[in-house]
Amino acid sequence: MTDSTKFFLPEDRLPKAWYNLAADLPEPLAPPLHPGTGQPLGPDDLAPLFPMGVIAQEVSLERWIDIPEPVREVLRLWRPSPLVRARRLEKALDTPAKIYFKYEGVSPAGSHKPNTAVAQAFYNKEEGVRRLTTETGAGQWGSSLAFAGSLFGLEVEVYMVRVSYEQKPYRRALMETYGATCIPSPSPNTAAGRAILAEDPDSNGSLGIAISEAVELALQRDDTHYALGSVLNHVCLHQTVIGQEAMAQMEMAGDQPDVVIGCVGGGSNFAGLAFPYMAEKLKGAKVRCIGVEPTSCPTLTKGPCAYDYGDTGQLTPLVRMHTLGAHFMPPGSHAGGLRYHGMAPMVSHALNLGLMEARAYQQTECFAAAVAFARQEGIVPAPESSHAVKAAIDEAMRCKQEGKAETILFNLSGHGHFDMQAYTSYFAGQLTDPAFDPAALERALADLPKVAGA
Amino acid sequence: MTDSTKFFLPEDRLPKAWYNLAADLPEPLAPPLHPGTGQPLGPDDLAPLFPMGVIAQEVSLERWIDIPEPVREVLRLWRPSPLVRARRLEKALDTPAKIYFKYEGVSPAGSHKPNTAVAQAFYNKEEGVRRLTTETGAGQWGSSLAFAGSLFGLEVEVYMVRVSYEQKPYRRALMETYGATCIPSPSPNTAAGRAILAEDPDSNGSLGIAISEAVELALQRDDTHYALGSVLNHVCLHQTVIGQEAMAQMEMAGDQPDVVIGCVGGGSNFAGLAFPYMAEKLKGAKVRCIGVEPTSCPTLTKGPCAYDYGDTGQLTPLVRMHTLGAHFMPPGSHAGGLRYHGMAPMVSHALNLGLMEARAYQQTECFAAAVAFARQEGIVPAPESSHAVKAAIDEAMRCKQEGKAETILFNLSGHGHFDMQAYTSYFAGQLTDPAFDPAALERALADLPKVAGA
Repeated sequence: MTDSTKFFLPEDRLPKAWYNLAADLPEPLAPPLHPGTGQPLGPDDLAPLFPMGVIAQEVSLERWIDIPEPVREVLRLWRPSPLVRARRLEKALDTPAKIYFKYEGVSPAGSHKPNTAVAQAFYNKEEGVRRLTTETGAGQWGSSLAFAGSLFGLEVEVYMVRVSYEQKPYRRALMETYGATCIPSPSPNTAAGRAILAEDPDSNGSLGIAISEAVELALQRDDTHYALGSVLNHVCLHQTVIGQEAMAQMEMAGDQPDVVIGCVGGGSNFAGLAFPYMAEKLKGAKVRCIGVEPTSCPTLTKGPCAYDYGDTGQLTPLVRMHTLGAHFMPPGSHAGGLRYHGMAPMVSHALNLGLMEARAYQQTECFAAAVAFARQEGIVPAPESSHAVKAAIDEAMRCKQEGKAETILFNLSGHGHFDMQAYTSYFAGQLTDPAFDPAALERALADLPKVAGA
Repeated sequence: MTDSTKFFLPEDRLPKAWYNLAADLPEPLAPPLHPGTGQPLGPDDLAPLFPMGVIAQEVSLERWIDIPEPVREVLRLWRPSPLVRARRLEKALDTPAKIYFKYEGVSPAGSHKPNTAVAQAFYNKEEGVRRLTTETGAGQWGSSLAFAGSLFGLEVEVYMVRVSYEQKPYRRALMETYGATCIPSPSPNTAAGRAILAEDPDSNGSLGIAISEAVELALQRDDTHYALGSVLNHVCLHQTVIGQEAMAQMEMAGDQPDVVIGCVGGGSNFAGLAFPYMAEKLKGAKVRCIGVEPTSCPTLTKGPCAYDYGDTGQLTPLVRMHTLGAHFMPPGSHAGGLRYHGMAPMVSHALNLGLMEARAYQQTECFAAAVAFARQEGIVPAPESSHAVKAAIDEAMRCKQEGKAETILFNLSGHGHFDMQAYTSYFAGQLTDPAFDPAALERALADLPKVAGA
């Protein structure tokens, strides 16, 4: 047994291929449907928005998809990311459990998001695209695409939900440092934005509006594509470098996880860590995978699985997923990256197949867990990642009660340096845990699109 | 030759001892003097402020001083820190030079400062101290001591220059996350603070005032010591893990630096990287060491070497160093960590002995270099560290002109996540490069204390 704290893989062990869980699922995913016709989508339907390299991955049933060398070259700026054993936290909890975390905060933008941003920028550049548009809420995704764009010489326009644009000026500054343009949404640049501003010039904006603006501009311009930071199959695919590295590192540590944990918003960081373990589970391995969401936006724990739109504007394809309804408006929370009405279809399917569990926590208990973690391990977690920290601590305490020396692995998907206002609010006692409103969910679910045979 | 980008040492190669340059200097350092008597200080004079473990290091002439195992255990949370070859930057500059950087931003507080904060917290805890007081300007040091205090169960009170306290709320939040108390200075808690507030209730504060407050409180309370984040010999000593690791990592890379670069404020991050290389230089190795400071606070390039106080309140010992005079007030700049009137006596002495060079840059050219670096390598440098980036790029361009394939190594002492406002100002064209005022320097130097025989 090793007494090391951190486990680094040499650069030449950066994964050479992404792992595609779709190849191993006992039942296939339901196909995405055209928002107009309700018929299954073909690749040509997606071509105005995405490059063919990405579209092929979205529908692929190949188990392994090679990572192009130029993408690996950029990933090597920070990958393989460290696996860390939280020895101080274990001691503080006085638990027989071993706690490991995979730390994705070492990326330039501070989270797992660049793993897919770099791949998407590469495929777009390959196909002659000159400009990418996207939306961002808290800013993690926008700054990741800005970073990737700067490396591949692509212009990047980020439509940032106006309330975040004003509350998180540091995220905006980070995007500008990488050379991107950051525009508060709703904006006068698009028909979608103008319509909202005509009704309410002071609109705070929403992720749904920002998506509509970014998609509208990509559709209008021949040299411009759109990029999405979570939910879709190709995004989950690009994140599987996390789990593959973690497996190799756990082997270095001489351990195997009994429990694998990630927070879930759109689902991609959880997918990245857990899908390679689900492949083992499908072959008989005993490992529990747990997706953790906020009680304020309980997509997996309270939402039905149904066809729904990805945005409020109903411009995106219909995908079958756990959803709270595209019009569900979760209460304000500092885990902006987890405030999405839907869930990756692959993660939704994995839940339905019994490959994983889901649980939900209030935000204040997650901040309490994050502070306990920071005071032992030093790293201040992003508010989103604090949900995974809370679940890991709860599992470690269960092990203590049951006298079991289980091994727990969680994804620390990002650091909180750009979210310190949330910690200030927490210490000032200003964070609340709004009660979940079942009537609001019922209203939003009543608007679910009717899809024949779904 | 390797084609790797990052070089990691295994944890068991974390240095086991600190390197003390004082043991190898051809001429001894001038002793510190008592501020009241002007006589050389004895250990007892420092005992009210510092633990004996630290005082012994301050005056030691031993070449190697063992790092206590509990300190190494904490350092292993993030050390050994990575050495990175900036291959993308080299290509963008089209230079024959090789550029490496040692990255200290991986520490929990985001800079090199925890290297000494952890050691100081340990020695204080060992000697039964219950509480540490300190000052902080930009917040790097305050958050580092807060972190170290939380690990060793020490209360930490940080007096933060009021203007920074208000402009950098995220740094304050970080200190509070680590359980420290952060108080805007001048405060009503001390005689020094009350005197200033009586004159000007809206005083912005200054580092000199904050030092006086922290020192006053430590002197008043038996269970309380004071901790300093730069300048002193023991601080430079604790930082030498940086250079020792870098040497081992350059060996892994199969290279040897021709030029070693660090920014200098109090001098400790530069000392940490450069002192182990100076030891080689004293044995005949050909390596240039360059300390880089802002033109707005040109301690090494324009200040004489003389005995001076460390603070404006004249409470600290007199040390012989390059200084602009304790009353010199540098113009505002975003590199708050480099706005100090003095310089580590060891670094000052090294300059006088010809072991290093010094140069100064304007802040806008440093931000331009930092942005160029971020767009290639991903990491956004702290404003302080941007001075080292600028010098590294200039050296690489010199190599291009001269057709020389030299190897350049610089210390990227911290990331800029908590300083993004500075980047916003830079992009908005709001940063100026104030002309240096020789008359102001002359006035400040006229106040230098008269020391017999110095």
